[in-house]
Amino acid sequence: MIYLDNNATTRSTSKVVEATVAYLTDCYFNASTSSAGVTGADRPRLHAAAAMKKLVNAEEPDCFIFTSGATESNNWVLTSLRRCGNLGKVVVSSIEHASVLEPALDLRQWGFDVVETPVDSNGVVRIDQLQQHLTHDCVLVSVMAANNETGAVQPIREIGELIRASCPRALFHTDATQAVGKMSVDLRAGWTEVDLASFSAHKFHGPKGIGGLYMRPGIEIHPMLLGGGQEDGWRSGTTNTPGLAGLAIAAEEAASSNYDAVGRLRDLFEARLKATWPDIHIHSQGVTRLPNTSFFSLPGMAGVEMADALAAEGIIVGTGAACSAGAIRPSRTLQSMGVAHEIATAGLRISLSRFSTLQEIEKLIDTLGALRHSLH
Amino acid sequence: MIYLDNNATTRSTSKVVEATVAYLTDCYFNASTSSAGVTGADRPRLHAAAAMKKLVNAEEPDCFIFTSGATESNNWVLTSLRRCGNLGKVVVSSIEHASVLEPALDLRQWGFDVVETPVDSNGVVRIDQLQQHLTHDCVLVSVMAANNETGAVQPIREIGELIRASCPRALFHTDATQAVGKMSVDLRAGWTEVDLASFSAHKFHGPKGIGGLYMRPGIEIHPMLLGGGQEDGWRSGTTNTPGLAGLAIAAEEAASSNYDAVGRLRDLFEARLKATWPDIHIHSQGVTRLPNTSFFSLPGMAGVEMADALAAEGIIVGTGAACSAGAIRPSRTLQSMGVAHEIATAGLRISLSRFSTLQEIEKLIDTLGALRHSLH
Repeated sequence: MIYLDNNATTRSTSKVVEATVAYLTDCYFNASTSSAGVTGADRPRLHAAAAMKKLVNAEEPDCFIFTSGATESNNWVLTSLRRCGNLGKVVVSSIEHASVLEPALDLRQWGFDVVETPVDSNGVVRIDQLQQHLTHDCVLVSVMAANNETGAVQPIREIGELIRASCPRALFHTDATQAVGKMSVDLRAGWTEVDLASFSAHKFHGPKGIGGLYMRPGIEIHPMLLGGGQEDGWRSGTTNTPGLAGLAIAAEEAASSNYDAVGRLRDLFEARLKATWPDIHIHSQGVTRLPNTSFFSLPGMAGVEMADALAAEGIIVGTGAACSAGAIRPSRTLQSMGVAHEIATAGLRISLSRFSTLQEIEKLIDTLGALRHSLH
Repeated sequence: MIYLDNNATTRSTSKVVEATVAYLTDCYFNASTSSAGVTGADRPRLHAAAAMKKLVNAEEPDCFIFTSGATESNNWVLTSLRRCGNLGKVVVSSIEHASVLEPALDLRQWGFDVVETPVDSNGVVRIDQLQQHLTHDCVLVSVMAANNETGAVQPIREIGELIRASCPRALFHTDATQAVGKMSVDLRAGWTEVDLASFSAHKFHGPKGIGGLYMRPGIEIHPMLLGGGQEDGWRSGTTNTPGLAGLAIAAEEAASSNYDAVGRLRDLFEARLKATWPDIHIHSQGVTRLPNTSFFSLPGMAGVEMADALAAEGIIVGTGAACSAGAIRPSRTLQSMGVAHEIATAGLRISLSRFSTLQEIEKLIDTLGALRHSLH
């Protein structure tokens, strides 16, 4: 199997698995009992918080609240507004993941003014348009750090500065699910105005079912899950020690990994694509992207059909589109970018990991060529 | 280490670990992509749903929505009421876990009339008192299946019949976290009036971070986590395939395990306790309890101090009380039962697993004796 869909999920590394298994078996104890110091069940959370602090250069380990993953973190941030008694404007970009967009749109039913701010043809948030929405009644702005489909990195620093200048009391949340562990993230340089950031371990070779929310010191939102008072009362539920032990190792390994090498492999892949098919469209190529991501359209190709044909050949890639009730629904991201329907439905997404090889991308290009021939 | 705190959490069995690891490594793929059939990533969810159906005799595998665990499931059920536009009465027992009680009490801020219904001196919900609260404006009744501290099994069948007779449109939710996998649960006999039931895999030798909500066919509540549309739209978030693979095996193993053998060991333990300390109080002994649970108080003993001393000797037990800011706060369950403060703060909870041995409980009794002597 050649797996080139690492923006969907990743393989846990052997050290991640080892750490996870240790807390499923020998050290399976509960982290919230008074014996946690004796049993060692308190260690994974401490380890995970320290590793995350280093990975994204946060102020303190205490800035991290661990959750079941970014979908929970995103929903938590958005739904917490219902409790603040401060109805106002919520601004989200038009290319947010559904776990931001859907709870945001739901806030309309609670009396909030929810605005989707557009992106340009490269899939980057239009600062001029965003500026117009940043009025004093704004309570939250949520813009993802990097898009899951195109990989386009959003101008988080610039957006943060605009928010502080125009609506200083608004919370600035970024869904950093695709960024954390795949590009350099620095909460004390560049991201200094970010108040809240969501992440998932399984996007950077950690286990599924564990992730978190970074909360800038001084920032508080209402808890979503009440109960046993874990996570200092911010998120109740039995501490997922196996997940946290895996997350800790994954964060350490990501912090010492070479993002540039992945980018060079992606660039080589795209150069070969263009050499083979000069009419190819590579989306967001004109802007800074995640180093592992390449989202392209070959005119005349049906993306979903091609992805299925590749899967049958043992090559797993992503598509931006989805088949729904027999019809092809193109990627919302590409639609937001103004990409024509026939190009959008032709999209294929390749997302590498740091374990991807030149041989794998060569095999993909060969297979694409053969399939393209046979599917015509 | 002798671990006798299995109501807090349990050790994953070797087959559970094997299944979990397979989906962290060789089959780490995303279950929501069109290639899930090719990669096999769709299997753990199907397996988990089938195993849960069998374990609790549900109508269909589709009755199960998987979540990060019972705390999420409980919060989901309670907070979903905010959306139903149907303000009314919410009835919970006074011994509910905090993950039911706290979101229930929070509903008062949203305009609901929230009532705590009391238990008797054995920690069983008082049917006569409950009956008075089951008026036509009742929208939800939540009573746990078995108490985490005393193990007292609640009269779910009788409560269900009362609800249908008195307020047929109210939802009946049970937090079955301590019951599932530790006692016989039958949703088509005895629990026929239960609409919603929460559970966590780590209470029956599955992994932490995975659990679910049973929803009776025809019952619908508003989703809490929106986004990618996983779990048929009921609960978004990347499918936790390693967790589900582990849960599936844990449910199968629990379904074929012998609850009676655990009960015989517990009964033997209590007989020896009574023979050694005739003045012992065994809470809820007069009623049906979880077979693995024994919650007792030795007059003059400080439960928290004793648990810490046992932990230092390598024996992990639970206490109903908690040390908070230097003061001993007795178990809320024992308080609800009307147990005197000095007895309540003396509580120690032993919760066995099906892997607990006679040697372990003999060692506990010996160590208790020695410590009781030295702590006086």
